[in-house]
Amino acid sequence: MKRRLLLVSNSTLHGSGYLDHCQQHISGFFGKNVARVLFVPYALHDRDAYTTTARNKFRSLGYEVDGIHEAADPVEAVRKAEGIFIGGGNTFRLLKSLYDNNVVTEIRKRVLEDGVPYMGSSAGTNVATISISTTNDMPIVFPPTFDAIGLVPFNINPHYLDPDPNSRHMGETREQRITQYHEEPNTPSVLVSQNRRPLTVLFGCFSGKPSAEFDPGSDLSFLLTDAQ
Amino acid sequence: MKRRLLLVSNSTLHGSGYLDHCQQHISGFFGKNVARVLFVPYALHDRDAYTTTARNKFRSLGYEVDGIHEAADPVEAVRKAEGIFIGGGNTFRLLKSLYDNNVVTEIRKRVLEDGVPYMGSSAGTNVATISISTTNDMPIVFPPTFDAIGLVPFNINPHYLDPDPNSRHMGETREQRITQYHEEPNTPSVLVSQNRRPLTVLFGCFSGKPSAEFDPGSDLSFLLTDAQ
Repeated sequence: MKRRLLLVSNSTLHGSGYLDHCQQHISGFFGKNVARVLFVPYALHDRDAYTTTARNKFRSLGYEVDGIHEAADPVEAVRKAEGIFIGGGNTFRLLKSLYDNNVVTEIRKRVLEDGVPYMGSSAGTNVATISISTTNDMPIVFPPTFDAIGLVPFNINPHYLDPDPNSRHMGETREQRITQYHEEPNTPSVLVSQNRRPLTVLFGCFSGKPSAEFDPGSDLSFLLTDAQ
Repeated sequence: MKRRLLLVSNSTLHGSGYLDHCQQHISGFFGKNVARVLFVPYALHDRDAYTTTARNKFRSLGYEVDGIHEAADPVEAVRKAEGIFIGGGNTFRLLKSLYDNNVVTEIRKRVLEDGVPYMGSSAGTNVATISISTTNDMPIVFPPTFDAIGLVPFNINPHYLDPDPNSRHMGETREQRITQYHEEPNTPSVLVSQNRRPLTVLFGCFSGKPSAEFDPGSDLSFLLTDAQ
């Protein structure tokens, strides 16, 4: 079964509204056969308000939204979902809630076995990968593992920032942080995405490949083979 | 027993060398009665190189350094330590190694019961607090818990950055991330420290106190009462 994924780095681009920058991709992705999308608001504290935001945007595109937290049985809600959208926020809170509600395995099964389309934004993109080990978020709660849903065999670092050459801030740069990740044994490739420039950067992976940069629209399907 | 702590935000300030900016504080802190300092290099991958860096700096101040990873028994090394310094790097890697080597409880005991002076820098400051939940680092490895050594009853966010009003980067600001932490139940106060301005900022804590700013040298001892 072909997996169908729309993994968005940010829900908002500077100067535009919620999901405005990718609304054409959303419509093209869910298409005409999906009428209702199951929204997972676990990454933010106020799940009702977050679901209202997503609902309003998706309605403008012709889709109804069900909040997974509104369902009596979240696992059953995943089983019945025509499409899934996991929104951004805090990645640790999101992953812990996914495990607390026992939906990690069910989402993986629906996407990989049943071909249900999965959209993620920011934290919702992080949890679609092998692990949340390259999130930018604070570890505000302790999840049972950093292993994530595993819809792709690599990691993602959303909204990457190049080092600011004028910075006097001596905290580690994003690149140094990802390099530290790759010092650990058997770490997968990290796909990073930038907001400011339309550019995708691939960092070195455990097999010793150097990092490389790719233009938008490039074929990155080599990342999808599990034996990179 | 009075606890003796020197918790440094950064090991390096822009334009100066390793620990240069706080070397007078280091000498004043360890004083004349300490001859050897036990250095914990767990936060960086290359422990030998890191220990050499620390050793060279501390020798210039009149102290010998023992790397905890050089000891046959790290717990015994903590038991014998006259002073302890935990260096910065990745906080998750550091905390996991502290637990892997069974030294968390022993360090706590030595500092709180025996009055051994403890110095931390960046990640070494994070692990001195209640938990690592307000670290800026990437979760590159999975520690058994986010609970830290607990030498102080609050959390710290080192090298805090105020939001850049000109930024077009739409990732969460540091303040938003800490606010998300305080949305969780029973979270302690977060003491944040800045590099660029000599300013300490205290964020709201679970008892509903608003955030406040303090000048250098201010008396923050109210943070040390366990029943804030």
